[in-house]
Amino acid sequence: MLIGAVEAGGTKFVCGIGNEAGEVLDRVSFPTEQPEKTLGRVIDYFRDKNVSAIGIGSFGPINIDVNSPEYGYVTTTPKPGWGNYPVLPELKRAFDVPFGWDTDVNAAALGEATWGVAKGLDSCLYYTIGTGVGVGVYIEDKLTHGLVHPEGGHVLTRHYPGETFAGVCPYHGDCLEGVAAGPAIEARWGVKASELPADHQAWEIEAFYIGQAIASAVLLVSPKRVILGGGVMHQMQLFPLIREQVRRNLNGYVSASALAEGIDQYIVPPGLGDNAGLCGSLALGLRALRG
Amino acid sequence: MLIGAVEAGGTKFVCGIGNEAGEVLDRVSFPTEQPEKTLGRVIDYFRDKNVSAIGIGSFGPINIDVNSPEYGYVTTTPKPGWGNYPVLPELKRAFDVPFGWDTDVNAAALGEATWGVAKGLDSCLYYTIGTGVGVGVYIEDKLTHGLVHPEGGHVLTRHYPGETFAGVCPYHGDCLEGVAAGPAIEARWGVKASELPADHQAWEIEAFYIGQAIASAVLLVSPKRVILGGGVMHQMQLFPLIREQVRRNLNGYVSASALAEGIDQYIVPPGLGDNAGLCGSLALGLRALRG
Ligand SMILES: Nc1ncnc2c1ncn2[C@@H]1O[C@H](COP(=O)(O)OP(=O)(O)O)[C@@H](O)[C@H]1O
Ligand SMILES: Nc1ncnc2c1ncn2[C@@H]1O[C@H](COP(=O)(O)OP(=O)(O)O)[C@@H](O)[C@H]1O
Ligand SMILES: [Zn+2]
Ligand SMILES: [Zn+2]
Repeated sequence: MLIGAVEAGGTKFVCGIGNEAGEVLDRVSFPTEQPEKTLGRVIDYFRDKNVSAIGIGSFGPINIDVNSPEYGYVTTTPKPGWGNYPVLPELKRAFDVPFGWDTDVNAAALGEATWGVAKGLDSCLYYTIGTGVGVGVYIEDKLTHGLVHPEGGHVLTRHYPGETFAGVCPYHGDCLEGVAAGPAIEARWGVKASELPADHQAWEIEAFYIGQAIASAVLLVSPKRVILGGGVMHQMQLFPLIREQVRRNLNGYVSASALAEGIDQYIVPPGLGDNAGLCGSLALGLRALRG
Repeated sequence: MLIGAVEAGGTKFVCGIGNEAGEVLDRVSFPTEQPEKTLGRVIDYFRDKNVSAIGIGSFGPINIDVNSPEYGYVTTTPKPGWGNYPVLPELKRAFDVPFGWDTDVNAAALGEATWGVAKGLDSCLYYTIGTGVGVGVYIEDKLTHGLVHPEGGHVLTRHYPGETFAGVCPYHGDCLEGVAAGPAIEARWGVKASELPADHQAWEIEAFYIGQAIASAVLLVSPKRVILGGGVMHQMQLFPLIREQVRRNLNGYVSASALAEGIDQYIVPPGLGDNAGLCGSLALGLRALRG
């Protein structure tokens, strides 16, 4: 049985085919242009693939309220053409199969819980630190939806001591995304994040913010694992720095070995690597099929 | 059918009997002393009550992992006699009925979702701002457990502009509980919180911290309602101040009427009033009975 997967990003779309074991058997990628054109390419890709279900993990904000008339829409994005666009309804018209639909980060969290580094756990958080910061929330074996959907990239953190950088989030200035996503690093240092050396102070500041946000998230929802992906997390030296910040902020208050001697297995990179997004969408498709 | 309910607090225990409609038919209260004595009184109370199940919402931290050998224990509390004490096992030995067991704030969240101000909603957060700050987390129709259990009272917030108060949390100093619980207010101003006039600057500062924590929680888990209880929230003038802080911090980023024109119905006092805790335990008992 084949499942279709769509990783619908603001910069590029990835479409693929996979199976129930989470194996990706085929994948293609193309830039995100106008929705008609982009979704046309998605439909062309799946036309002869004979998939039993399709899962879509999408950039947002999106409507994931099944009772809403706008279910399946991309909503208030400033991205030209995509504001209030019926992405899911358009794909549903083309294929008569069950569809899964959620945020890209919720999808990635589900993928990791199904086949990746959170396999067998009933909760995890999936952070992506890239062009923006997003958080997927998987709790008690369910993806968190709620009022809209999680947007944990925009939480407020305390400033790094002495930091005067005002941040780049158009809504909040110095929210987590505004001080810690790739564009913030670039704005702060005047060079691309990927060009900063591994021992640059930038990474200590980065870990300060991310570690602080994770500590508060661990306190609020007590996830069984925290997964950090996205372009910025290619800087592997961040992991020990972030773990140290989390420990420092919790200061022993939560008594759990996972947060002490086990922290190297608690705050981790995606187990599915660069397939985390696509496998997440695959997991959404599989879940839709099984009801 | 009668359900037993125990609100196990660090200062006092409340025991009661209720029915499936959430009506409390009887209640008694006594101070929390040594566990043997206190649990003895609980057992005496229920002995002739013929309850079909008992729900317990407990002060913590507690073990709520059903697969742990220490399930049902109060764990690392500094409270004399109660550290690592098998509260639930002891009560189970006395009564052969299904038991529900969770944190006091999770219980209160469930009670509000069952009969109170979050009735019919599949998610809510329940904050208590009292001697400490606790947060109950109810998401996608389930209470959040995770690694240990939510401890959202200890998240870090930014300081109120110009505030130099170091906070009173023994673990974190100026975490939310350390700057906003009743004892913090008393330490900051040198008088009991209940004695400060309604127009005192204390309440603006209080709302600043609580509103900031709520904004970050709304971003992370997108609850459908936020309920604020506990002694400090008897200061009703806090509600509009907190709502304003939440709006200011979100700054329109999350597009939902509940966070704009609907915010007066979004951030609210407990619908069950002073029965919120006991009804929460009742709801836990009912849930245990129904499996
Ligand atoms: N090796 C790297 N080190 C640090 N930052 C990187 C690296 N690679 C990419 N980035 C940053 O990550 C961001 C892109 O994130 P990515 O997760 O790849 O895509 P997106 O978030 O757009 O889906 C850019 O801001 C870029 O500067
Ligand atoms: N009317 C009031 N106004 C402000 N603070 C109050 C009021 N009543 C109680 N408090 C504060 O709330 C705290 C007690 O909280 P409460 O929720 O009643 O109990 P607990 O948290 O111990 O279960 C105390 O620190 C007290 O100062
Ligand atoms: Zn922001
Ligand atoms: Zn604390």
